[in-house]
Amino acid sequence: MSKKEIKKVVLAYSGGLDTSIILKWLQTTYGCEVVTFTADLGQGEELEPARKKAELLGIKPENIFIEDLREEFVRDYVFPMFRANAQYEGLYLLGTSIARPLISKRQIEIARKVGADAVCHGATGKGNDQVRFELSYYALEPDINVIAPWREWNLASRTALIEFAEKHQIPIAKDKRGESPFSTDANLLHTSSEGKVLEDPAQETPDYVYSRTVSPEDAPDKPTYIWVEFEKGDAVGIDGEKLSPAQLLTRLNALGRDNGIGRLDLVENRFVGMKSRGMYETPGGTILYFAHRGMESITLDRGAAHLKDELMPKYAELIYNGFWFSPEREMLQAMIDKSQEKVTGRVRVKLYKGSATVVGRESPWSLYDQELVTFEEGAVAYDHRDAAGFIKLNALRLRTLAKRDRKTS
Amino acid sequence: MSKKEIKKVVLAYSGGLDTSIILKWLQTTYGCEVVTFTADLGQGEELEPARKKAELLGIKPENIFIEDLREEFVRDYVFPMFRANAQYEGLYLLGTSIARPLISKRQIEIARKVGADAVCHGATGKGNDQVRFELSYYALEPDINVIAPWREWNLASRTALIEFAEKHQIPIAKDKRGESPFSTDANLLHTSSEGKVLEDPAQETPDYVYSRTVSPEDAPDKPTYIWVEFEKGDAVGIDGEKLSPAQLLTRLNALGRDNGIGRLDLVENRFVGMKSRGMYETPGGTILYFAHRGMESITLDRGAAHLKDELMPKYAELIYNGFWFSPEREMLQAMIDKSQEKVTGRVRVKLYKGSATVVGRESPWSLYDQELVTFEEGAVAYDHRDAAGFIKLNALRLRTLAKRDRKTS
Amino acid sequence: MSKKEIKKVVLAYSGGLDTSIILKWLQTTYGCEVVTFTADLGQGEELEPARKKAELLGIKPENIFIEDLREEFVRDYVFPMFRANAQYEGLYLLGTSIARPLISKRQIEIARKVGADAVCHGATGKGNDQVRFELSYYALEPDINVIAPWREWNLASRTALIEFAEKHQIPIAKDKRGESPFSTDANLLHTSSEGKVLEDPAQETPDYVYSRTVSPEDAPDKPTYIWVEFEKGDAVGIDGEKLSPAQLLTRLNALGRDNGIGRLDLVENRFVGMKSRGMYETPGGTILYFAHRGMESITLDRGAAHLKDELMPKYAELIYNGFWFSPEREMLQAMIDKSQEKVTGRVRVKLYKGSATVVGRESPWSLYDQELVTFEEGAVAYDHRDAAGFIKLNALRLRTLAKRDRKTS
Amino acid sequence: MSKKEIKKVVLAYSGGLDTSIILKWLQTTYGCEVVTFTADLGQGEELEPARKKAELLGIKPENIFIEDLREEFVRDYVFPMFRANAQYEGLYLLGTSIARPLISKRQIEIARKVGADAVCHGATGKGNDQVRFELSYYALEPDINVIAPWREWNLASRTALIEFAEKHQIPIAKDKRGESPFSTDANLLHTSSEGKVLEDPAQETPDYVYSRTVSPEDAPDKPTYIWVEFEKGDAVGIDGEKLSPAQLLTRLNALGRDNGIGRLDLVENRFVGMKSRGMYETPGGTILYFAHRGMESITLDRGAAHLKDELMPKYAELIYNGFWFSPEREMLQAMIDKSQEKVTGRVRVKLYKGSATVVGRESPWSLYDQELVTFEEGAVAYDHRDAAGFIKLNALRLRTLAKRDRKTS
Repeated sequence: MSKKEIKKVVLAYSGGLDTSIILKWLQTTYGCEVVTFTADLGQGEELEPARKKAELLGIKPENIFIEDLREEFVRDYVFPMFRANAQYEGLYLLGTSIARPLISKRQIEIARKVGADAVCHGATGKGNDQVRFELSYYALEPDINVIAPWREWNLASRTALIEFAEKHQIPIAKDKRGESPFSTDANLLHTSSEGKVLEDPAQETPDYVYSRTVSPEDAPDKPTYIWVEFEKGDAVGIDGEKLSPAQLLTRLNALGRDNGIGRLDLVENRFVGMKSRGMYETPGGTILYFAHRGMESITLDRGAAHLKDELMPKYAELIYNGFWFSPEREMLQAMIDKSQEKVTGRVRVKLYKGSATVVGRESPWSLYDQELVTFEEGAVAYDHRDAAGFIKLNALRLRTLAKRDRKTS
Repeated sequence: MSKKEIKKVVLAYSGGLDTSIILKWLQTTYGCEVVTFTADLGQGEELEPARKKAELLGIKPENIFIEDLREEFVRDYVFPMFRANAQYEGLYLLGTSIARPLISKRQIEIARKVGADAVCHGATGKGNDQVRFELSYYALEPDINVIAPWREWNLASRTALIEFAEKHQIPIAKDKRGESPFSTDANLLHTSSEGKVLEDPAQETPDYVYSRTVSPEDAPDKPTYIWVEFEKGDAVGIDGEKLSPAQLLTRLNALGRDNGIGRLDLVENRFVGMKSRGMYETPGGTILYFAHRGMESITLDRGAAHLKDELMPKYAELIYNGFWFSPEREMLQAMIDKSQEKVTGRVRVKLYKGSATVVGRESPWSLYDQELVTFEEGAVAYDHRDAAGFIKLNALRLRTLAKRDRKTS
Repeated sequence: MSKKEIKKVVLAYSGGLDTSIILKWLQTTYGCEVVTFTADLGQGEELEPARKKAELLGIKPENIFIEDLREEFVRDYVFPMFRANAQYEGLYLLGTSIARPLISKRQIEIARKVGADAVCHGATGKGNDQVRFELSYYALEPDINVIAPWREWNLASRTALIEFAEKHQIPIAKDKRGESPFSTDANLLHTSSEGKVLEDPAQETPDYVYSRTVSPEDAPDKPTYIWVEFEKGDAVGIDGEKLSPAQLLTRLNALGRDNGIGRLDLVENRFVGMKSRGMYETPGGTILYFAHRGMESITLDRGAAHLKDELMPKYAELIYNGFWFSPEREMLQAMIDKSQEKVTGRVRVKLYKGSATVVGRESPWSLYDQELVTFEEGAVAYDHRDAAGFIKLNALRLRTLAKRDRKTS
Repeated sequence: MSKKEIKKVVLAYSGGLDTSIILKWLQTTYGCEVVTFTADLGQGEELEPARKKAELLGIKPENIFIEDLREEFVRDYVFPMFRANAQYEGLYLLGTSIARPLISKRQIEIARKVGADAVCHGATGKGNDQVRFELSYYALEPDINVIAPWREWNLASRTALIEFAEKHQIPIAKDKRGESPFSTDANLLHTSSEGKVLEDPAQETPDYVYSRTVSPEDAPDKPTYIWVEFEKGDAVGIDGEKLSPAQLLTRLNALGRDNGIGRLDLVENRFVGMKSRGMYETPGGTILYFAHRGMESITLDRGAAHLKDELMPKYAELIYNGFWFSPEREMLQAMIDKSQEKVTGRVRVKLYKGSATVVGRESPWSLYDQELVTFEEGAVAYDHRDAAGFIKLNALRLRTLAKRDRKTS
């Protein structure tokens, strides 16, 4: 396949070795102008070195975009997703998946601004991220050119990459020369690790893979209790202090880290068709997940709660597969958001050596009615005899069935 | 409503005060012959005292049925349910719900055997259990008479009950005279507690409510590791030792108890329409839940796994609501069981201070293929360029949509 | 059960014999003030006779409410439901179900206005309508008293009813003295018939049961073609003429009637647990159903369309069961409405002897792209080779599975 | 992409011009031995000419496979699918989709028998059929080589194809020289047409496109009535005559043809991402669809019926997308088949000018109980007062909600 002619490309640029190689490869292969976009999504790295590196690699200052997207990330992506209690395959809180649409969206917006005709990402050819980036690009800008170097070039080994870097005077940190024992992705919601040392799913993840949490064994011997406060389905404060979305998640991350919360070792099914084993650390998100369920438990009606539960797997799958910007995800979001109007109040969570446990919840909009459940029949809406009729009519079809089935045809 | 004429009734009889009162009330109110049925489902109580108590209350020996149903319970009810990874409202492992159908089935079988025209249970008029018992009765024996004393009598307070007991010479243990601070239900899968001290959902459950687990704080400071072995979706052994279903769950319960695993404090939605707050301890079941998911993670195809996940909430709701003996539960079971043919192998679980974490899994039927996920493109089935086409066609409808949406009508 | 004390009750009053008997029964049984509410939902009957009859039965003029709700009915109930393509049990367009919530809502609003403490409907004790009325009442006014005479009185036979009517000087039309061979319900969307002559589901419905459509055999020998015009999912015009919701449905009804369209003979499952056989005539609604699907076929994306299709049965079931005013119906509606923003354009329908067939559709927002489907590969977005990659990655899990399954453990 | 080395390929061969060109192209491009497989799926063409043509093109007699698969097609593919009432996008009975897995399966079986290392189909690069063929191939034989000429060659126009045919002495029927105004696919279940004259979805399909049905206008002026007999969900006879699956469908096709039944003009969403407009004729299948629903209406319990309805769209989508041989389709099939055990009896259908209408149904396993629905309360299982309790408990959560929502926080 001959290369398309590209004039200007917006690259998702981390400042690391791999995306620096991509930067240079774009220049040499396409001969095009490169615009770098580096976002702070809370991955915990300085961004200014990325600027210097980009300049060093010949990017014009006006072509270097560095942005702090943490608040937008949590407010417009993480929180809407947590309203759904989304878990992929029953366990994974989608920390990587949810970051891709935002990066893609900003790349497209920058492309429009600078008049670029292409975008480029550094995701490999076997993973889900390439799909997530590209579906988002296309959904937002249908005729954009997409460059996926890992699927195009023939730098097929670590050695080839290092040679290319050396040949083009790309600085190489010492610890990047050899193969990394695993690869990671990080943002304010989570850190994921996969590859090499994790590839045998029968072997426990070595402790040095974890970077965002202390091990449960090393966590304090005394539990920590917090109140997480919610308004319309979103967390807005902790222990009485109002916090912005990113501040709040940062705070929960610190609490989770200290108490060894949010580690997940998972074999999951990728959208591209194979199983992979990943290790996730989602300290604050794990607390938030349980707290949100706890908040819903007293403020959501059963019909609303069960409908949400039934559709959650589909919603989570859409995000995992990269369909954030799709009509069906937006429809499900409209449905979910509709349910959150009264999900307001606060939830008490106990954090202890790896566990986040809801131990209390209260709300001005609580649907829990102590009078209704109390042992004695009261002046309230509940008449014991109603239960008889309720059961009788629910049983009617089963009785008809039983009578039918005992017949001999 | 005048009482129906009843000749002989099979009572689900625990030997405790409440069902003894019911026994006597049946005799005095209906003037009918009472047959008692006492089952060992692993609730951890001696059964022989129930026999003596029944005899004391005038039940003829041939009308006293005492049975050990532990193996049947785990094999035919608990295990099929765990094949589905069933959790009600995202968290509850359905320990009470799953026991009711078996008790009901045996009551009906005994009723047929002894020629009884009625069955009776001791569930109250505000809970789910009355529904579960009665839907099961009717599904199995559509014309059976069902007696639900708590909905019929006017022993509306603790005082009235005690008076009735005293009047009829029913022995009353000292600690049963006053109101219990909470009520419990127990079987081999779990113990549940609710009522009184638990009725304020903002307050943490007091530690004395728990009976099946040590608190995480009191659990050992070192983790315990076990291998749980599976065949066709069911656990069959631990650490190399084959165990019968009930033996296996008993063993897991001991491991869970010691490590503080399986406590759940939940506000849930009852089928009869109100919210209630319950406390559950499911020590072995919690380990089994995670182990089974881990086993499936390498042996189930994505299509099978996601279909199961999408239908799990409905399946769990059916069991919670009492529809075990319904065509739709049986249809879902057929679907689920079909998926379990190769869910065989073993899973390594780390037990530590309240958490059961899967840390390894292996299977002769593993679908995890290290070669497929490895960084380098190999001789294997995966061509990086395929990903481009895969993404392009998945994006096609989104691109068409984006082009349409930017038009002005 | 002793009667509650009721001061003032709002009765859903048709002016017919049965609700006149109820009116009098309310006066004599409860000794309460009766407020009548008579609505025009397009059932095709004069309303003024109802006023005269109510006056005759002693209702004060200020207690007689007569309203034309046709536009509200179609705009706020029928159209939202048709956005969902709702069909109960695959076939029934829910004509009766959708009228009940509106009647209930107006009864409650009138009750608030006149200070009534109760509402009353004339639905029988075996049907779905009692549920639909009462769930709506309670959802809107949780402490309202509900009177359901058919479940309360002992006028258990036609003879008893007639005697009661004669005793209270209620005028009886000649043809109402005997048993009706079937009972009907009608509104602008449909007429339903059930009972007596329809009770043997093996026998064809006699032709005299139908009142809203000519038989297909008697319909014109030449087809009629119309364009139905849509805006955001709702029909807004026919053949270039803009029409209000009720006008539009009235027009479609006339077209449907003349062409024998919309007859349905169905055995359905009632919410109260038994099967019943009903006959429905939905002339305009049937045309609208197909036209709307046709409009969506070119304006809805696949993801949106399939999500709607998957949830339609649940949505239809909610309406059938009486849960219009429930959070889950409202959540689904939010989801559905979100999808309809571009469902604008027009659809050509052929009407012929019982069939309404879509034969053409066009839209300024069409997603149908002739260039994409054309045989030759063009300058367009589609590269044949993409299909190879698309298939390969979709096949990957199936290939892995096939390799696994041919192994012997 | 350089061609793989192929030794022997099994070609799905119709005997027509296109697959004859493919045959020759395989010989000249791959230099491999070609095995032809021609199946009678009821497409209504003689098969012996295909044998002669294959011989003429140099295929050895032992490499020519011609098989009558009609019974297997209907019994093992069509009937299981109809048990599900499968309709893609609410309307399409999947006539093309369901034939592909069987053809693929036989190709793979023949490949194993003759030791072929490749299979080849004649589906184009923009359609669904390529996906259906290839997913089936891979699911059954994961390492098979798949040749898809339409995606590989550069015979990109009709002219190029004709030139190739002439160059290689492939006989060309006169009417095949020009472009066909539309293309068709046919089997015992249906005929589909698409392309050219159908590509404007606003224009009505010209009458000459239809080949399997008379137009409703030309159908008899008198209705035809038939009884369709079922056993365990499958049709087994018509009007008292037992028929094999293929015989039965053939008979229904004749009845449907004569009465103008089963025409469908549809814009649908292809799996490969674009919308296409197709015309389908499914005369017998349309009758069967309604008859089967009618049979289920009295023999299936509500719980079973609604579960089936909810999952039908997913099941239909799986078949449409080519996932017949997937675990999730097989799981759904297990679920569906479980429900059909008592779907036995007969259904009366009226056929008239384009419509197939159920007018009667009867079964030894009927769940319809005339006594239950009758107006008067009888000795039966139904007590009117039960309805009050049933409604009260169903309303409880809505009342709680209404009370909550009128509060001001």
